[in-house]
Formats: sequence, structure tokens, C-alpha cells
Amino acid sequence: MKRLAFLICVSLHAETGRAAWLRYAQTSASVPSVLATLGGSPLFDSARDEILRGIRGMAGKTLRLERGMPKENAIVIGALDAFPNLSANLPPDAYWLKSVRSGTIEYTIVTASNDRGVLYGSFALLRKIALGQPIANLDEKQVPRAAIRWVNQWDRLDGSIERGYGGRSIFWEDGHARADLTRVREYGRLLASLGINGCAINNVNADKRMLSPEMLPEVASIAAALRPWGVKTVISVDFSSPKTAGGLDTFDPLDPGVAAWWKARIDALYAAVPDLGGVVVKADSEGQAGPSAYHRTHADAANVVARALKPHGGLIFYRGFVYDHHMDWNNPKNDRARAAYDNFIGLDGKFDDNAVIQIKNGPIDFQVREPASPLFGALQETNEAVELQITQEYMGQARHMVFLVPQWKETLDFDMGKAPVKKLVQGFIGVANIGLDDNWAGSQLSQANLYGFGRLSWNPDLTAREIIDEWTAQTWSRDRQTVDTMAHMQLSSWRTYENYTGPLGLQTLTDIVGNHYGVAVEASERNGWGQWHRADEKAVGMDRTVASGTGYAGQYSPSIARMFESPATCPDDLLLFFHHVPYTYKLHSGKTVIQSIYDSHYEGAEAAEAYVRDWTTLRPHIDEQRYAEVLEQLEYQAGQAQVWRDAVTMWFLRASGIPDAKGRVGNYPGRIEAESMTLDGYRIVLVTPWESASGGKAIACEGARCSASFRYEGVPGWHTIRVQYFDQSDGASHFRLFVGGQLIDEWAADKLVPERRTRVDSSSSTRRTITGLALRKGDEIRLEGLPDGAEHAAIDYVEIR
Amino acid sequence: MKRLAFLICVSLHAETGRAAWLRYAQTSASVPSVLATLGGSPLFDSARDEILRGIRGMAGKTLRLERGMPKENAIVIGALDAFPNLSANLPPDAYWLKSVRSGTIEYTIVTASNDRGVLYGSFALLRKIALGQPIANLDEKQVPRAAIRWVNQWDRLDGSIERGYGGRSIFWEDGHARADLTRVREYGRLLASLGINGCAINNVNADKRMLSPEMLPEVASIAAALRPWGVKTVISVDFSSPKTAGGLDTFDPLDPGVAAWWKARIDALYAAVPDLGGVVVKADSEGQAGPSAYHRTHADAANVVARALKPHGGLIFYRGFVYDHHMDWNNPKNDRARAAYDNFIGLDGKFDDNAVIQIKNGPIDFQVREPASPLFGALQETNEAVELQITQEYMGQARHMVFLVPQWKETLDFDMGKAPVKKLVQGFIGVANIGLDDNWAGSQLSQANLYGFGRLSWNPDLTAREIIDEWTAQTWSRDRQTVDTMAHMQLSSWRTYENYTGPLGLQTLTDIVGNHYGVAVEASERNGWGQWHRADEKAVGMDRTVASGTGYAGQYSPSIARMFESPATCPDDLLLFFHHVPYTYKLHSGKTVIQSIYDSHYEGAEAAEAYVRDWTTLRPHIDEQRYAEVLEQLEYQAGQAQVWRDAVTMWFLRASGIPDAKGRVGNYPGRIEAESMTLDGYRIVLVTPWESASGGKAIACEGARCSASFRYEGVPGWHTIRVQYFDQSDGASHFRLFVGGQLIDEWAADKLVPERRTRVDSSSSTRRTITGLALRKGDEIRLEGLPDGAEHAAIDYVEIR
Repeated sequence: MKRLAFLICVSLHAETGRAAWLRYAQTSASVPSVLATLGGSPLFDSARDEILRGIRGMAGKTLRLERGMPKENAIVIGALDAFPNLSANLPPDAYWLKSVRSGTIEYTIVTASNDRGVLYGSFALLRKIALGQPIANLDEKQVPRAAIRWVNQWDRLDGSIERGYGGRSIFWEDGHARADLTRVREYGRLLASLGINGCAINNVNADKRMLSPEMLPEVASIAAALRPWGVKTVISVDFSSPKTAGGLDTFDPLDPGVAAWWKARIDALYAAVPDLGGVVVKADSEGQAGPSAYHRTHADAANVVARALKPHGGLIFYRGFVYDHHMDWNNPKNDRARAAYDNFIGLDGKFDDNAVIQIKNGPIDFQVREPASPLFGALQETNEAVELQITQEYMGQARHMVFLVPQWKETLDFDMGKAPVKKLVQGFIGVANIGLDDNWAGSQLSQANLYGFGRLSWNPDLTAREIIDEWTAQTWSRDRQTVDTMAHMQLSSWRTYENYTGPLGLQTLTDIVGNHYGVAVEASERNGWGQWHRADEKAVGMDRTVASGTGYAGQYSPSIARMFESPATCPDDLLLFFHHVPYTYKLHSGKTVIQSIYDSHYEGAEAAEAYVRDWTTLRPHIDEQRYAEVLEQLEYQAGQAQVWRDAVTMWFLRASGIPDAKGRVGNYPGRIEAESMTLDGYRIVLVTPWESASGGKAIACEGARCSASFRYEGVPGWHTIRVQYFDQSDGASHFRLFVGGQLIDEWAADKLVPERRTRVDSSSSTRRTITGLALRKGDEIRLEGLPDGAEHAAIDYVEIR
Repeated sequence: MKRLAFLICVSLHAETGRAAWLRYAQTSASVPSVLATLGGSPLFDSARDEILRGIRGMAGKTLRLERGMPKENAIVIGALDAFPNLSANLPPDAYWLKSVRSGTIEYTIVTASNDRGVLYGSFALLRKIALGQPIANLDEKQVPRAAIRWVNQWDRLDGSIERGYGGRSIFWEDGHARADLTRVREYGRLLASLGINGCAINNVNADKRMLSPEMLPEVASIAAALRPWGVKTVISVDFSSPKTAGGLDTFDPLDPGVAAWWKARIDALYAAVPDLGGVVVKADSEGQAGPSAYHRTHADAANVVARALKPHGGLIFYRGFVYDHHMDWNNPKNDRARAAYDNFIGLDGKFDDNAVIQIKNGPIDFQVREPASPLFGALQETNEAVELQITQEYMGQARHMVFLVPQWKETLDFDMGKAPVKKLVQGFIGVANIGLDDNWAGSQLSQANLYGFGRLSWNPDLTAREIIDEWTAQTWSRDRQTVDTMAHMQLSSWRTYENYTGPLGLQTLTDIVGNHYGVAVEASERNGWGQWHRADEKAVGMDRTVASGTGYAGQYSPSIARMFESPATCPDDLLLFFHHVPYTYKLHSGKTVIQSIYDSHYEGAEAAEAYVRDWTTLRPHIDEQRYAEVLEQLEYQAGQAQVWRDAVTMWFLRASGIPDAKGRVGNYPGRIEAESMTLDGYRIVLVTPWESASGGKAIACEGARCSASFRYEGVPGWHTIRVQYFDQSDGASHFRLFVGGQLIDEWAADKLVPERRTRVDSSSSTRRTITGLALRKGDEIRLEGLPDGAEHAAIDYVEIR
């Protein structure tokens, strides 16, 4: 008996975000009563069941399933050649929604030249209904901009995910494909709803076992789960496999034995998964082996695999993310930003036609602001795809709301001289890294990035506002206030995050050699990773000009190179990416660089606080669990924004010696440093880096219980106390707050955090807000900390407002 | 360190009903910033913590705790003698809320003559804030009508609860007091908020071990949990204990050894629990041993225990629920309703002054409609308390919404000749039977009955509307629409339930020898339990007149007796309780008895359906989980109401032979009996009693899978299908519905039910509603059933609308 897959359980459970934008919430749609299918295939079944499910949810009606053209009003899905009176020249995956009248009967036809297009058209029809758009008198053809619309997952076979913030892998556990692939099927459905047609299922830092015979059935089982949704499975492979896993004594791409090995393994792979999309290769980068071992080129490397894939129609994606991470930082001409261009420009035209160079949006590594990679414009005779990072590695790791579509659009719309990036690329690759968490991404709000990537990869001309409004209406509510508020929040969130992290092209001033999350202004300097901003006591920024710097600016076409070459024409947002300028340098805005750094951080932190207030206005429109989750996230983010603000501004104050013209930096009214309190058991600790705690110090408890107290000396009245403390991932300390001996609040430092954070620093820094306290002058305010595990109930400061 | 008991966790968890009416939802109250306590005691601590907690929740503020009169605006709680300028003559438990100005300072004083009164006043102050009433310029004294305001729990020591519908016992498990008494403390708080000051913690059908030495610490641990809330612990004892558990060879109450035994045991009990409230005794009733074994009177029995309690200030509650359940039903003069009066009237004045006769509201047993018990008016020199049943034994068992306050008020306001019942009783006893379920009662809506009992026991002059509005505003929302809709639903719910069960004084026409839940019109007849309605082919009702019947009407004072004696003056609602009349007898309403029975059942079922619609209008105002729970309950109730309607009306149609003037009874448009379908594997079964399934038959599956199908012959269009099936508690069958081969719906018969129901009958009868189906003439509609355990996937009928 057929399983009833499309039924939505009316349950007592709260909405968790697992349905994402495919919630199919009730609406007032008028629909015909018949859904007819012309022809049949697994993808048709998916399309049919999805329409049934969607209309069941949105209109509360169960359509009658029929085969062939019905004798009454109907939605009809079928391939184009099943409709004798319709003709169109549709490329693969494109679809046509067409209302056709026959006598008194109206058909709403969903058609395409291939099954996948019919599936996409079906999702599009449902999206129209969800958005409250009419579905009468339709005549809409939609053609995807590129044939390659893929996501990459950086899942390890052990079930962990590199830079994943949404839980464990949906694909892998303990070295094997999961027995229960329910979430993979659900993910396939989400991807299909966006028109994404490929998914790389393992990390680009690839496990050497991926090509072994025993992995084939595992890959095949995952492919079977994705296949009904038109999503091709892709795997990442290690270029050294012939030697390290294949029993050969070399992996030289020009060695005939190596070529034969690749052919045999790829043939076996296609025998198991005939519709495999292809493979992804990361070589000669960040410790991965590559063709340089044999003095061969990246083209040699890509082509040996490409030739094995060719007979099967498979593609190889060869990552352009190649650089030396042992560069000498003392040499001012060295520049990691140059690497992709320098490595690949000489190989243009030498890659086989089924090889694609996968190029990150910017020349560094998914930083908060980078120029578009010059490689997009430089390669003339090589297939290229843009790699965008959906997972928020350097962008708040799903604990901060950062909507990335505006950033991506800046790259895609950037004119390289002959055309914008979006017209130069043959494919869109998104590094998704969703996980088993109910909300997939680690945060309800971060789902918008997956949605946005999918929609952009189909049509990069969509505006960020169009995308976020679609997402909000489907994911949350079509209520006008909700749509407008969410648009304001999400569309401003990238600028806000940039403001409180690293503005003016400084890149994300995070711990780049550590968790890529907390603030560490100097982490990028004085090491071989090459992500330098070169701030010193006088000036800041990396000189990448041709005239006096690394010459990176010259990798662009002449007019763009000219624009970046001169501070006078370089946009403020990228000034310090291209130029080393004194702190007193005046921006186009009229502000000095140093004051702009100060101002932007205060603006960013204020904007983050405002998001909390914005969100609370939506309470009547949002379901409880998701409301509470987002509220908690935004409150945390507001606290983190303040930590970043204080850290970066204090660092630049100390470096430059130039005070904030508005007197804010280093002056925190109502703040009482923990190290200045009367301590009982607590001892003062120096925090590293110093800027990641207020005053560079915190207090930590190494006994069973410690306390810190001070007298309130402010005005009497209702006040708010904020306790800034450190919530590490290696313990769950308890805290208690007393006023005049009265226990006011107690809490545990036990929040789940996206990365392991086992130190007292900005990554673990968080706050507890206690409102509505009647304080009187002279009140003793006392904090008690009870450590747990390796967490020492550390406290940074208290603020009273 | 003190535990922070008053903090409300802001969590991601949904509201479950566990907070009941003490949710302290956010409101816009203006409050002073200090809470001062004059004096101290555990009850003061409870009062202080409760005010802190309530104001924290409602106003978002944490009050400063002080001792003594503060020098600023404050809430001040203290005993009356702590305020030199205040004097009043307040009885115990009464309270006084009084605003006092001293210079520019305003004190909001909560005072009383005892600690319990201060606690009650504190809850009253919080209730005012929750209801949005001003707390400035207060001068309000509240005096409880009676000193005894108790609940009884019918919890067995094994953890089960007789007639409990809210889960297992909060007090007992496996023969012992629970190790974790958290819920007992929470229950004490709920009771205190209503002014309830005593709680019997074990079943009146008492375990013989209750007086054993090893039970004393267990009772003491429970008493310790209730004590901070001013709730005295009470235990039920078995009157035969001296012999059955005490080692004596008699329990003759006049035997000196028995008296000594009681004294010794009660002394030991008070040594363990010095503030014990007393004991409850059920004797000579429903199998419980009693003084009749030694030809002694109930006064002899009560007094031997009363004398043991007397030195400790304890009370004995002796239940008036004494009757012979082996009465000869053939004797038309026999009448169970007479029993309480007949047993106790001769003993008036013979009970000690610390003995109280606990009298059920009506003469039978908590039926849907009974006259007030004549014993209330008859006893002149005996303490009496009214026993009301909060747990809905005969009133839908918390699966049906039945708000009992209107019923209770009918009894309490009933004038016995010299005064209404509420003025004749010295105490109010409610049989509560709450359990471990998060919502305490088994249903969110049934919490209103505990609330209503408590408020009435404090002030029986409150109107039902006042009570339900208070409850709604605190439990759900102060939103006007919510308050009005809930008032409409709850206030009409008793009449609705009466309408679809047993109107005109027939009593609840349920299975009185079984689960007291489902319909079984004849279950009351032809057995010794004496709950007869004596319906036959010509007439219906029990003749309880003096002139020709059992003489029960004569137990009332003359004017009331006269009213009940004549059908001309007897209220329609009690006609069949007092009179045996032909079906064609005309009511005051102008209708015949038989047509009234038909009409009321249809009205009741329609009203139950309307509650579902009423509730859905409140969706924007109600939190998700409680909204969904109540919706599910009301939908189920609407289905049950139809089952009752059809069963009772068909039974009376068959008995009387008189058709429904409106043609409804026996004529169900759109209904297809399962037994008329084409069956594959299913076989037809006769249901007992016949009226509890449509047509007296159902179909049951004894194989692994069966199906039943029929052709749809109605008009094409969007339709609703309702499948009436049987959801027993001893299995979880699965059902699937197909239309024209298309799987439309599937579900499991796995709902939790309040009582074990292991038969195909009205108790297990429930329905699945499938809306939005496009049906066409000739469609094959097929049901598949997959039995599980002892449940045979039985089906009654399908209705298509």
C-alpha cells in the first residue's frame, strides 16, 4: 500500500522551523478540484504529491488525482510534448505555467521540457498560492540563468560538519551513510523548491575512502533519497587517492596508471549512481595534496579526472581556492588575495570542457567584505562557477542574523569590465552545511540564506527585497507588518554585522587561526595565513596597489584596476582592503578612518539592540516556539555586538592613540568592572586577546563558590542590571545575583554554542539582563558564581541602566 | 542558600496549563517598589514570595523586600496587631486590603487576624492586578462564608485515583507518599489562592493501612508540603480498622477497647501531624463496613472517632452517602433517593459537635440534574457540609466541557424553607481528584470547576458569570472577545450536556454499573443500585410523590414538598425525577415529554458543534498548545454529543413508538451504515447496548486487514466525510480512507481516554473528520482497518456532508 506522504499532521507540537518555507500555512486560495498527471516518473510523483500536500495545507482541500485530461477544471502537470496544442522552446529545468481554456473548462497547466522542470513549475505554482498571487490566466515561462545550481555540504563521514552550525550531518554518521535518510529526503525537497539540482554530500577536505568500493552502496543510498527531487548527488574526492587509498605509488596526473585508476573508480561510481553529477576537488590548498607534488598544473589535475567523468556526462569542479598558508608576513609584496588569479590565469583554455573552476566570491575567504574575485573576469576560455558561502563561517555562525543576499548580489552584479559576474559564470555553488537541527541552519533566521542562494542561483536578477519578502511570507506570515519588519531587519543585517565587526574592508576582525567567531584583531597578523590588515600605530590597511603595494589591484581589468588603485576612487567600504592609510585619512563620507571605525561600531551595536525591539513587535503574528528562539538569538546577538564594539574600538584607540570624538570609547557609564569589585574567592585573570574582555581582565572562580560585590551609587528608581559573563562549552556554571541580600535572579551558563569555546574570551562572552529592579543608593549588589567542569564562572562586568 | 522559588523561567516551552489561573501574565500594572513584611511565619513567607512572583510576572519588576514599615510607598503584609492604627473584628481567614496614607507615603496593606488570612489577602491583591482592577485607595474586607473549605481527593495509595481524570496521584505511588512532592506544593498553592484550607489526601473508600504507625511519616511528609499554604491535611479512614487492621476482634463503636484504639491512633496521628484537619469516614455504603454490623447508629460511629479527635481540635466528616445497593427494583416504593434522609433524620442532635455530616448536593449521586438533598433542610441540630463533585464523574469525565458552578449554585441557592442551602451548611467540600497531568484536571477547561468550587466556598453569592470571567481573565486572556466567548461556552455547557444526555430529571443516562461515561439508557434499570428512571412503552419517570410514589417528595419542607408533589408545579427540569408521566404529557414549555427529549438532544448536539466554532474564533488570543488541546477536546465532545443524541432519541423512539415531529430521529441524511457497505474481511457485530451504535451494529475486523466500501451517490462538489469508529484503550488500530483508489487520509485509533474502555460501544465511539474532498457521483469510497491488540478497527458509520 502506498504511503501517505503528503498528509500534514494536525498535531499539538509547535512549529520548529523544520518545514522551513514550505509550511503551506492556511490561506484563502480558490483551486480547482482535480489534479491530473500526463505521463509519469518519480519526479512527476514528487510534483503531484507536493501539489496535493500544498493545496491540502493552504486551501484545506484534497484534490482528486486523475490521469489524462479531465473533463472539468483542473491543474494538469505534464511534459510539453503531452500537450498537442502547446509548444515552446524551453531549455532543461525551465517551466511554463499556462492557463488554457477549452470550452467552459479551465486548465492550469504546469509543463516543461523535462521532468525536473515540471517539478520546479509545481513548486512555483504553490509559491504563487502561498504568496497570495492569482493563479488564473497564467502564462509564465521561467528559465534558470545557469544549468549548474548546486550546494556543497562540508560533512565529514564521522557525522560532524566543518563549519556547520545546524547540528550533525543528515548524511553521515560513524563513517557510514545514515540508516534513516528522512532528513536527506526532506532536504532534497527544500532544494528542489528552489531549483537547486545538485548536492555535494561530503567535505571538500575529502575523506580518502570516498572512492573505495565499500562506499559505493552508501553513496547510492543517499543518491536514491535525493533523486526523486531532481537533485543530483556529487562527491568530493581527494586528489591523492590513487596513492593514499588506491594502492598506486603515485598520484601524478600524467601517469597512465593514475589515469586508468581514475577511470576505473569513476566507472564503478557511475555503475552505482548512473546520474551522479560529478566530483569536487580541492587540491594544493590548506594542506590538501595536489599536482604541485609532481610539478604538474591544476589543468593536468582537473583533466585526468575530467576524462574519466566525460563518458558519463559528469563534471569536475576544481576549486580556485588555492593559496600558500606559509607566506612570509614580513614581505610587504606578499598577498594571499593574488593567489587564485596567479595560480589559474596561465591555465586559461587548458581545462577540458567538463571541468569547471569553482571560484569564491572574493579573493580571500568569505570575509564580511571583499571585492569580487578578479579571476571571474580574467578567465576567458575556462568554465567558471561562483562559490558562495551559505553557512555563516565568518558571518556570526548562525548566532548572528546576517542575511547574505545583499553581499552576494554585490559580487554577482559587479561588472568585471565586460560583464557582471552573474553573466560570466556557468554555475552557482552554495556551501550550505545544513544539519540535523530541526531548523536546519542552527537559527530560524539563517534559513533565509539557503532560500536566497537558491532563488539567486535561478534568477540572479531578483532583488534582495523580493527574495526576503517571498521568504518571510512563506516562512512566517503574509501579514504586512511582519513582512516589512523582517525586510528591514534582514536587509540591514549584513551592514550591521560589518559595522560592529570589521568595516572599511578590514575583513572580519575575528580569530582567523581559531574558531572564526570571536573578536581577535591581531589574529590575522604576523602569521603565514596572509589575511593581513597591517594596522599599526599610525596607519591601517593593506596596500594592494600596483604602484606601491602587492599589485593585486592590477588583476582587474583596467577601468576597475584604476578605481581600486587610487584612494580617491576606491569605495570607502573597501578602502582598507586596498590601501594602507593614516588613521586621520578622510573618507568620502568626510569622516576620518579612525572616527568611522568608532562610529560604525556604535551604529552596529545600536542596530543589533534595535532588532530585539523590532522582533517583539511581531509577537502577535509569530508562533510561540519560533518567536522565543529568535528573541533569544537576537538578545544574544545584541550582547555580542557590544562585545565586538568595545573590543575593536578599544584596540584601535590603543593602537592609534586618537580618542573617539564623541567620547564613548573607553568610557562606559554604569559599567562596573568585575576586577574592581570586592572579591571573595574570585581572582582576577588577564584575558587573551586583551580586547576581548572589558579592561582586558575578568574574574574567575577556582573554588566551589565565589562572590563579587559592590555598592550601588546611582540614583534610586527602577533599573536594569546586565551581567556580562562567560559561557564556555566545557561546563555549566551557576550564577546568582543578590541586591541587599535579596536573591534576585539565578541562571546557568549552559547555552549551546555553535563552536567549541573553552576559553574566557569574546566567543564565550554573553550577558544576562535583569529588568525591573528597584535600586537604592548604597545597595550592596553581589554576584555569586558556582563553577562547573572546566568553566570557572568567569565574569567581565556589570552594567546598570 | 535560599532557593529562588518565585522566579518564572522564560523558556522555550509552551504553556501547558500547569500554572492554571496563577499564570501572572504580563499586564500594565503600576506597583510600588517595596514589599515589606511585619512579622514572620512560613505562611508569611509564602505570601511574600507569591507577591514577589506575581508582580515579577505581571509588572516585570522585582520588589525590594524589607522588614518593618518602609519610608516609601510599599505593599505591607502583616497581622492586624502589627498595625497600631488599624483595627477590625476579622474572623479567622478573613482579610483586609487597606490603602493607608502617611504623609506623602502610600501603603497598600494586606492584613488579617491570622497568618492564613494574610496569605489569602496577598492572593486577592494579585488577583486584582491580574484582573486589571485598581489597587489604589483600597478598603476591602473579605470574610469567608464558612470556616470549612476543603477538597477531598479519592487517591488510592497505589497511585491510582478513583474517578480521577487528570493522571496518577500527586500524593501516592506504590503504597507510599511520593518522594517528589513538588506537585503537592503546587497544588497547595492553587488551593490557597482560592481560600481552600483543607485537603483529604486519600480515598473515602479508605485503605486500612492509613492509621498504621508506618504511614505516619508519610502523612507527615505530605502535610509538610501543604502546610506553607495554610492547607490542613485530612485523611480518610476505614471504620472497620480496629478489627481489620488494628488487631481487635471488633470495631463496635460502643466497645471501650475500640474507643481506646481510636484514641491511641488519633493521638499518634496528631503527634506526627499536630495541625491535622481531621478525618473523613464513609461507612455502611457501597460495600464499606459500618456501625450496622453491630446494630449501632451512625451517631455512635461518628462519635467514637469524634471523641478521639476532640482534644486535638480535629473534625470528623461523616458521609451522608449511605444507601442500600441491593434494593429490590420490583418494589415501586423503594427509592435510593430517600436513603440519606431516612438514615440520618432520626439521629439529628445525637452527633458530637466536632462531627459534620457531609451531604452530597443531591439525593442520588452527582447526576446531571437532581433536586437539592432534603437532608440539608431536615437536620436541625447537626453540623452539615455540602459535598460537591469537582471531578466530572457523571459529567463527561473532563473529556466534555461541563462547567459545574451553575449546577452547584442551583443547589446552594435552593431555599429549603427556612434558608437556602448555602446558609445551612457549615462547610463546603469539593471532590477534586486532580492528578499529575500538566493541566491537573485532564482538560484545560475543567480547571474552571476547581476554581469555581474554591471561589464559591469562599463566597457562594458570587455569580457564575463573575467566577468564569475571573477565571478566564487569569487563565487565558483579559481580551474582551476571549472573556465573552469563554463565558458563553462555559455557562451554557451544563445545559448543553444535560440536553444531550439526560434531560427533564432523567439523570445522566449513562452506564451506571460500568464506567459512568458512555450512554446506556437501561443500565440504571432492573438492578439494585436504585438509580431508576422506569421508562417503559407508555411512560417515563420515577414516581416519588407522597400520593402515589415513594414518598421522597415528602422529605422536604411543606411548601417545597407541595411544589414537587404535583406535575403542575414541579419544574420541567425535574419532572421525570418526581413523576411517572406518559410520553405525551405536556410540559410547561408546551411540548410533549417525548418531543422535548428529542428536541433537547438535537439542541445539545448542535450546541456542542457550535463550541468548536466558538473556540476557533479565539485562535489569535490563545497560546498554541492549549489552543490545540482544547480544540481537540471540543471536536471530540461534539462527536460524542451526536452519539448520545442518536442513542437516547432512538431508545425513546423505540420505547414510545412516537416519531419525532421534526422527522430527525432515525433519519440521518448522508449517513452510510458500515453494516450496509461491501465488506472484505470485516464482519457485522451487534453492539451492546444496542443504542450505543447507529443501527445497533458495527463492523469489526478479526484479520490483519479488512476493508469496507460503498459508492458515493450524492451531488458533486466539495464535501466533508466523517468516519464514526471505535477507539478502545486496549489497542491502536489504523484506518485508511480511499476515494476512487486515492489514499485520502490515514490515522490511528490511539487517543488517550479517561477510563479504560475495552468494548465497541458509545464510550469508545469517536470520529475522524476529513474536510475538503471533491466527490463525484459513483466514486468508490473505501475504508481500510488494521486491528491492533484487542482493538478490531471497528466502524459504526460514515457521514458525508
